[in-house]
Amino acid sequence: MGKTTKDQLGRIVAQETDSPVPAVILVRPQLGENIGAACRCMLNFGLTDLRLVAPRDGWPNPAAEPMAAGAVDVLNTARVFDTVEEAVSDLQYVLAATARRRELEIPVVGTDDIGPKLKGLSASGLPTGILFGPEKAGLTNADVVLADAILTYPVNQAFQSLNLAQAVNIFAYIWANASLPNIPDVFNPEISDAAERKDLTGLFEHLEQELDNAGFFFPESKRALMSQNIRAPLTRAKMTVQEVRTFRGIVKALAEGRGKARIK
Amino acid sequence: MGKTTKDQLGRIVAQETDSPVPAVILVRPQLGENIGAACRCMLNFGLTDLRLVAPRDGWPNPAAEPMAAGAVDVLNTARVFDTVEEAVSDLQYVLAATARRRELEIPVVGTDDIGPKLKGLSASGLPTGILFGPEKAGLTNADVVLADAILTYPVNQAFQSLNLAQAVNIFAYIWANASLPNIPDVFNPEISDAAERKDLTGLFEHLEQELDNAGFFFPESKRALMSQNIRAPLTRAKMTVQEVRTFRGIVKALAEGRGKARIK
Repeated sequence: MGKTTKDQLGRIVAQETDSPVPAVILVRPQLGENIGAACRCMLNFGLTDLRLVAPRDGWPNPAAEPMAAGAVDVLNTARVFDTVEEAVSDLQYVLAATARRRELEIPVVGTDDIGPKLKGLSASGLPTGILFGPEKAGLTNADVVLADAILTYPVNQAFQSLNLAQAVNIFAYIWANASLPNIPDVFNPEISDAAERKDLTGLFEHLEQELDNAGFFFPESKRALMSQNIRAPLTRAKMTVQEVRTFRGIVKALAEGRGKARIK
Repeated sequence: MGKTTKDQLGRIVAQETDSPVPAVILVRPQLGENIGAACRCMLNFGLTDLRLVAPRDGWPNPAAEPMAAGAVDVLNTARVFDTVEEAVSDLQYVLAATARRRELEIPVVGTDDIGPKLKGLSASGLPTGILFGPEKAGLTNADVVLADAILTYPVNQAFQSLNLAQAVNIFAYIWANASLPNIPDVFNPEISDAAERKDLTGLFEHLEQELDNAGFFFPESKRALMSQNIRAPLTRAKMTVQEVRTFRGIVKALAEGRGKARIK
């Protein structure tokens, strides 16, 4: 993950690249709330280029901003077009998001393939975009024929109508999944404070010494197996330095507590 | 994709399997709207087992149903628990969804790996689930330690706070992406009405005959190249029977029209 920079439209994105990111084109969207929610999930996954074709309630729409929840840069730089043709005029590869088969001979792509494809086009400097239809009816065939391919999601065929912003969210995720580290650097395991093997061995020896004192290893012939059953799970647990320290404290406390109980 | 059936809680899913599907556990959710929206996207992607831990505004919550948009089966069979421990008590593998690194030694998994893993556990009959925290604060460390692993998304580090329902949506999609056909059967290309090669050859011959009549192939030495430039793009277009018929009509109309124009 690169440092946080601003893209060509001045919006905050954690990317160093100058490659174009896919445009999200909402065709005749109805609810401002959905437009705002789309802005938020776009920015969550690094998308910033929002285009609106003939939004039903005009633009700007005051219902959008609360749902954008901070993604106001995406909201404020959204561009409005009268027609889909104008909205896609600068794009090299356009998808149409739909769950319905059309009486059109247009290739259908699934989510497995589209992320790497869009990333490759973007890396080559080619601008891409995706059309999402209005809430009630979805894209018309006249919209879909303007696309190079249909993108469809692996939905439950018994309940396949996605909310508009949720559909944008899945697309934005697919983009991020192809173009950002799958596990963000903030989780980098190198920061981890893993115990060294000698710390673990020290814990085992301490524990087994105290168990010996308590007469735990009986009969003696079972000692090796019993020891294995102690060491294996604690090794699998992959403890930190601090956790090993805590466990040594536990052993000490139990051993000394046992001693105290005996004294009483 | 299987036929539409009902799962063990009586909800409509398009799956034939009796394998458990991952439970979605919303921990101390605040807004009924988000709970309802989560139901919708769960069902969109074949998830049906919703569990609520101490929902802020009680349960049922009238704000949830409008956002569930038809996924009322998921809503109505949601189960409410007082604690996370109770909500996960029957599960074999539990994830915690968080974008923040914790001072906990718990494995971190990314979205690339988790779909196949959950599918495998499910296929073995092992119930799984995922914890999502409340809108404002997310999961506490006390919640996260109850999980086997943290699941994190490849988010824009400059704007990483997802809406609760959008976070559920991504998880549900990941499940579907691992367990349902990536391109739903409704798009099965076998249904397609692709033209046979002889239809295409017929079109080429018709077109080239009319072009010959019009003196198009000049000079004769360029005929082969000109013919290639006609045939290659029309082959790439992978036309249907109906489209070939339309193109033959075009050739005929242009040829006859030209004749008419000449007569005038």
